This record gives sequence, C-alpha cells and structure tokens, in this order.
Amino acid sequence: MTAISELDTPAVLIDIDRVEANLKRAQDFADGHGLKLRPHIKTHKLPRFAKRAIELGAVGITVQKLGEAEVMADAGITDMLLTFNIIGAAKLARLKALNERVTIRVVADSGECVAGLADTFAGSARPLGVLVECDTGMGRCGVQTPAAALALARTIMASPGLEFHGLMTYPAAGKYKAAAAWLAEAKTLFDAAGIAMPVITTGGTPDIWHADEAGVATEYRPGTYIYMDRSQVAAGAASYDDCALTVLATVVSHPTSGRAIIDAGSKALTSDLLGLVGHGYIPAYPEAKIVGLSEEHGTLDVSAYADGGPKIGEQIAIIPNHCCPVTNLFDRVHLVRGGELVETVAVVARGRVD
Amino acid sequence: MTAISELDTPAVLIDIDRVEANLKRAQDFADGHGLKLRPHIKTHKLPRFAKRAIELGAVGITVQKLGEAEVMADAGITDMLLTFNIIGAAKLARLKALNERVTIRVVADSGECVAGLADTFAGSARPLGVLVECDTGMGRCGVQTPAAALALARTIMASPGLEFHGLMTYPAAGKYKAAAAWLAEAKTLFDAAGIAMPVITTGGTPDIWHADEAGVATEYRPGTYIYMDRSQVAAGAASYDDCALTVLATVVSHPTSGRAIIDAGSKALTSDLLGLVGHGYIPAYPEAKIVGLSEEHGTLDVSAYADGGPKIGEQIAIIPNHCCPVTNLFDRVHLVRGGELVETVAVVARGRVD
Repeated sequence: MTAISELDTPAVLIDIDRVEANLKRAQDFADGHGLKLRPHIKTHKLPRFAKRAIELGAVGITVQKLGEAEVMADAGITDMLLTFNIIGAAKLARLKALNERVTIRVVADSGECVAGLADTFAGSARPLGVLVECDTGMGRCGVQTPAAALALARTIMASPGLEFHGLMTYPAAGKYKAAAAWLAEAKTLFDAAGIAMPVITTGGTPDIWHADEAGVATEYRPGTYIYMDRSQVAAGAASYDDCALTVLATVVSHPTSGRAIIDAGSKALTSDLLGLVGHGYIPAYPEAKIVGLSEEHGTLDVSAYADGGPKIGEQIAIIPNHCCPVTNLFDRVHLVRGGELVETVAVVARGRVD
Repeated sequence: MTAISELDTPAVLIDIDRVEANLKRAQDFADGHGLKLRPHIKTHKLPRFAKRAIELGAVGITVQKLGEAEVMADAGITDMLLTFNIIGAAKLARLKALNERVTIRVVADSGECVAGLADTFAGSARPLGVLVECDTGMGRCGVQTPAAALALARTIMASPGLEFHGLMTYPAAGKYKAAAAWLAEAKTLFDAAGIAMPVITTGGTPDIWHADEAGVATEYRPGTYIYMDRSQVAAGAASYDDCALTVLATVVSHPTSGRAIIDAGSKALTSDLLGLVGHGYIPAYPEAKIVGLSEEHGTLDVSAYADGGPKIGEQIAIIPNHCCPVTNLFDRVHLVRGGELVETVAVVARGRVD
C-alpha cells in the first residue's frame, strides 16, 4: 500500500476511526432521546458510510438532489428523504422512476410544487410521501406559518397519488428553540384538525447536541457530523480531535520568511468562509494562518514561526472550514487509520448537481 | 436535440459565438501589439477551445496542474507552460513522462524547486525548459527581486538537464505597471549579464486590454477572457454581453413575495466573491440580487419586482462572479448558439487537482 507521504497532493484523507466515533456518538445521542436519525449524505457522498450509519441504527438517509438519490438507490439504500422541491418535467420523471424501486419521500412548500407532484403521481400504483417544508427561521424555502403548513397538507391529502407524511424544517444554526416553538404550534394545529403526522423532521450539525430540545420533532438529519470541520468546532459542536476529514497539501513555495504557499487553493478547500476568518486550520502548525486562496494556491502567513514553519516539500494536513463542498471537489478520497492508508475510494455521488 | 428549456438544472451553458468573439478579440489585440498569446485552459478545461485558440494564433497553452497538462497532451496539444512549482517525487516522475511526449515548460522560484527538477532531468535526453517565477506584486509565489531572479536563473543554467527559458509573473490585478517596471529592471540585469531570455510572460484577464503596457513582456496568458464573468465586468475588462458562460437554474420556491429560491447554490455558482457583493448577475432580472447561497439553494431578493419577479418553475440564466471554478464543478457543459442547444460536452480536465 502507498504511504500517505507518497500521495500526490492535494488529496483528501478520511480518518475512519473518527468517522466511526462520530457516527456512534450521534446515534447514541439520538437513541438516548427517543429521536430517529436520518443522516444527510451530502457530506460524504459515499454509499459505504450511508450504509454504516444505517447499520448503527439510522432509519434511512437524507439526500439533497435526485442525482444523489439515484446513486444511493443503485448502491442498495432503500429508504430516503429528498429535502428539496422537485420542479419540472425532467426531474418529476426521474422521481417517479425512483419511487418505483425504493422508498423515497420528498418535500413541498407551495401549491405549484404539489401540483407537479400530483400530476406525476396521480394514478400511480405506488403513492408518493410528501412532507411540508417549514421555514422556522432559516429564511430559505418553506411555508411561512403553521396555518400555511396545514393548508398545504390538506392540498397534499386531496391529491390522488400523494400521501401527507409530516413536516420538515432546516432550522437556522443556533435557532433550534425558535424552530421547536414553530413546530409545536403546527403540531397543535394538526392535532386539532385530526391530521396524523408520521414524521416531524429537523436537522443541522451545529445544534446536534441540542436535538433533545427539538420538542415535537421525531427525527433529526445531521450531515457534517460524520466528518466535522472548522466551522463545527467554531459552533461548539466538535473539537479538532473529532475532525475526520483533512486536506493533505504540500508546501510548494516559501517566497519570504513569513509566507508559505501550498498546492491547495479554492479548488481543494473551497472559498466557503461560513463566517470564519481564514480558510482552514493546520493542526501541525496551529499558529499558521491560511490568509488567501486562489484556485490552485493557498497562501499561509507563517510569521508566527521564527524558523518559517513548514518547509518546501513538506506535507501538511488542513481541517477545512466546511468539509461538505470539499468532498464535492475530489473524484476520490483516501481512507486512513492510525496514520496508515487503508483504501482509496471513488466519491460516487460527487458532482450530482441535479 | 433537446431544447434548452428541457435541460435538467442547474446546468452550464456556453455561448459559442461569444467564445469565438472573445478568443478573436484577444488574439487580434495581442497581434496588434507584437505579443504572443498563451491562453490558460483553467477557465474552460476543454481541449476543443484550447485547440481553437491555437488555430487563431496562440503559441500554445498554459496549464496550472500536471493533471490538466496530461489531459491536454492526450488531446493532442503539444506546447504548454505549467505555471506551478512541481515539487515531490510523484509529480516529478509525471512531469518527466510528459516532457518525453510534448513540449512542456515549468516554473521555479526556489533552489529547492530547481534541485528537484535537476535531480529528475539530469542525464535526460530531452532537457526541461524552466522559467523563473517572479513576484511582481501579487504576494503569492515568486522570487522577490530581479537580483534573485538572476541568481536562480544561473542555478538553472548550471543544472544539467535544465534550460533557462525566461521569466514568468502573474501580476496582481490592476498592478500591471508595477509588474512592467519589475520585469524591465530584471531584463536590464539579465542583458548586462549576457543571458538571453527567450520568453518574458505575464498574464491576467482583468488587465488584458493593458497588455500593450506590459513593457518587456513577450507573451500574455489570459484565462477568464474566453468566457468572462461578473468579476471581469466589475474590473472593466468586459461587458455582460461578452459573457459566454451562464448557469441555468430553476426557481424552486417563492416563499415570500420578496424571496425566490433557485436550485443553484455554491455547488453550482461557487462561494467566490472576488470582492463583489452577491453571487452573480441575472440578465433577465437585473434588479434581483443573489443574496445567499447554501450548497444547493440560492436565495434571491426579488423585492424590487412588484409581481415577485421570476415564478416557480421558471428557468433563469446567471452570470457567475467567477466562471473558472464553476467549470470545475460540472461534469459537462452545454454549448449553445442563438438560444439553441448545439452540443453537450464533457469537461475532461475538470477536477484535475494534482
């Protein structure tokens, strides 16, 4: 097996012991609080980790795009929630084909969205489960009030081929209490109307350790928790020792004593800041700052190191700000354990934008 | 042929008439000022456009990574400059293999980098051309002074298997006069030392229409010029009517009268801001602002439109802030002409990070 030091950089390393610990910790937490776990595969885009989470007790997976769902269905995953409005003839046809081979449920937040689903699934032998997406403070998709959720649920229930399956929200980070209050109000409305809700699902890794405060929610959808990253450390959801994904880079230039250049730029680390300053954390050089990225270059301020810090040719591992889009940039990742390369795997759901 | 309106979104559209006009305009400008053109393929990552630029008069291409060079060599391109330090055994072996089948020159900005090249190419039947990278104000890679450039050139000249081929710089945007002064001072030093410089190469699309002020430079390396983008319009290098690449997205939600959500997020548009506010320009809705991106959602402020602007299900074309990393996110792009889909092509050099 190739040694890590022999890998061509930039490369993505995944510490599989940390992955296992992160998966178990979240499953244990969910189990301990009577919540179902439905992990989002956007972070890793690998069927093997989706399957491992299910082995550990997850009820299924969450996907964000039909292309991801198709890859996961091909790999044998049979229960998924697609948390994105499906609009347009091309996508509706793909959804219908998927629904014939796996259990896939979707969301909707408008009459237009429900109408497209209803046109497609009317008369279908296998009805489609639809959850109403609720904007509980994120300011993205979602109906704006519990009353609007109830009205849209009634539209779904009146549509042949569709089944109302519950409520979905993606709360703004740190706003889990507001989300819980919103969902509780909605639940009261639905109860009064005598409408059963099989699932009330919420999510977000930043607040995963507050999932027990999610009130009426029955299910939690974390994504980043499997790898964790610098943004989650900043949010208090993880420590650097929990971070399973690193970008391995090589110092290719050291033009001044205070500046080093690595071969990982935005094409490896992404430009995502998520409110942070700088573009990642380097455990071996905690005082080094990644102050700039162009596509293929990362610029390090190493002026805190009297000897200039890392030398030309030295490999350094970086914990990125946001691990999910990093995964999307690499055709393959390297699984490692205890500093040894174990296996190199293709990121099969990478680039599934539609 | 599929109509554009039937494409699954998000999708990248390339207007081939605009590509042709952009390539010709730059070639004519270079010809008119006695400069050679060596376009950077990082923007399109497509052999066909590399070849078209050469047909129009370019002397070869620029690549940023060995993986890109390998793809272009496989496609029949025979003259390239790799403007990135090659460090480490794995990459040096790949470079040596490439140099045996095409003309490829590289850059170096340190004794360590030259030593690696020299170790690899000593005794090689086919010597390697090496340019000294100069930091003329960008603050990235490059020797810091003209005297250091001369010293490193002497090291290259003293290395069996290497040939000194000239100077390379990537100037900071807007700093082309400072770069020209730096290069002029270096040229004077090299002339006094009696050292010939086959090439002095500079680049950058933001200042391409000032290439005639590049002084002693003999060659220009533009990249983004082939597609142009919102950042180039902001820099004054292009108009929106020159922009050849758009991201086609669909409105999937319209939760409030002032907010619309599209199916293009950072996985389609990237998080690159390049100093701009917002994440792209929508020609059909110039008053709409792309105020936020998550991975798969783009959030539009459409409050300037009393009727809410684009409707659910409507397709909109977006000129991104920075077209180059967008290309890197898509497995394929759609070539269009006059609003008609002409051909769908694989982005064969996408994801070549190493």
